[in-house]
Amino acid sequence: MQRQLYTFFRSSTSFRLRIALAYKGLDYEPHYVSLPKMEHHAAGYQALNPQRLLPLLIDRGRRYTQSLAIIEYLDEAYPEPPLMPRDIEGRSYVRTVSQIIGCEMHPLNNVRVLKHLKTQFGADDAATRAWYSHWIAEGFRGLEDYLREARRHGAYCLGDSVTMADICLVPQVFNAARFDCSVDDYPIIKGVFERCMALGAFRDTQPSTQPDAF
Amino acid sequence: MQRQLYTFFRSSTSFRLRIALAYKGLDYEPHYVSLPKMEHHAAGYQALNPQRLLPLLIDRGRRYTQSLAIIEYLDEAYPEPPLMPRDIEGRSYVRTVSQIIGCEMHPLNNVRVLKHLKTQFGADDAATRAWYSHWIAEGFRGLEDYLREARRHGAYCLGDSVTMADICLVPQVFNAARFDCSVDDYPIIKGVFERCMALGAFRDTQPSTQPDAF
Repeated sequence: MQRQLYTFFRSSTSFRLRIALAYKGLDYEPHYVSLPKMEHHAAGYQALNPQRLLPLLIDRGRRYTQSLAIIEYLDEAYPEPPLMPRDIEGRSYVRTVSQIIGCEMHPLNNVRVLKHLKTQFGADDAATRAWYSHWIAEGFRGLEDYLREARRHGAYCLGDSVTMADICLVPQVFNAARFDCSVDDYPIIKGVFERCMALGAFRDTQPSTQPDAF
Repeated sequence: MQRQLYTFFRSSTSFRLRIALAYKGLDYEPHYVSLPKMEHHAAGYQALNPQRLLPLLIDRGRRYTQSLAIIEYLDEAYPEPPLMPRDIEGRSYVRTVSQIIGCEMHPLNNVRVLKHLKTQFGADDAATRAWYSHWIAEGFRGLEDYLREARRHGAYCLGDSVTMADICLVPQVFNAARFDCSVDDYPIIKGVFERCMALGAFRDTQPSTQPDAF
């Protein structure tokens, strides 16, 4: 197959790619890389992606890493249906929402960081959860305020069209739920999440549906 | 003035914006926000940016946050000289390099995270530096490998034209140097850094030149 995705069911950044590919109707051959088993540090995977991170997309023989860059690549290479708006202001807004999640929330809470807290500081389960909750609350608070003030949200983050922003939001809400952080205090985020989950591209790619889920 | 930048001399993400604006010859009125004095948590600043993060750009009366989103906005609103290549593959490469730094390195090492390590885990200076060095080494190793394998670098990250990738790389090298992490082990990164610093847009906006530097 011309397209291959290296994914782990619980990885938020892999989930972003699964949604984007499904939304655009792009088929792919999945390769399952277990983060708990450290398969991303195996020589074979490291040869494909020296960063040793998920996801990795191979499209038409080329390798692509960093999920937000990949989503914009997919949108430029396969424009329909679009995941980015056509106007400058709209694109800026979508990138900002995506980066609030992708640069401020997710990097502090992914598995390698939680593991390192344990290694370096001996963080136990309670301390890890406290760390996680702190950054989730800080991030969702700032994101909810941003969305409310921008007044551009509708059914989704930007009006009534799905964009990259929604593709970042939904996996972050799933990730938070796994650490018992709900979004009940954030009505815009919660509403967008629920409406996205009514769409096949989101529902059918969620972690629990994946063949590598356990 | 039609353009205002909220900046702190030592903030890597503010430095990114200072470079981008200088490279494009766009004037602005600077507003200095001291992170050590917690001025980013003051009510006045929070009203402008609910995320309480730097930088903030006001352009033609609109507020823009998240530095990578702002750089792409500036490049779309003020296209010359370009900071993004015209081809899909080139843009994907530039965004990937930018996100390796912006999503994997900087978020783990900025001031608010180092402060929180102290608050939650009582991290002393040595522990903070160990944390910092760990993520810098992991990040620069992966970035150097990525640049080497992609074989697209020249004087700068992408051939001989300055792009958003260089604007992310240079402040990260400055930041690392402040924590005594050198880039001597990463020859491509080091070479790009040195050639960028020969350019006015980088040299004249570096932290030590800023009026709020101390």
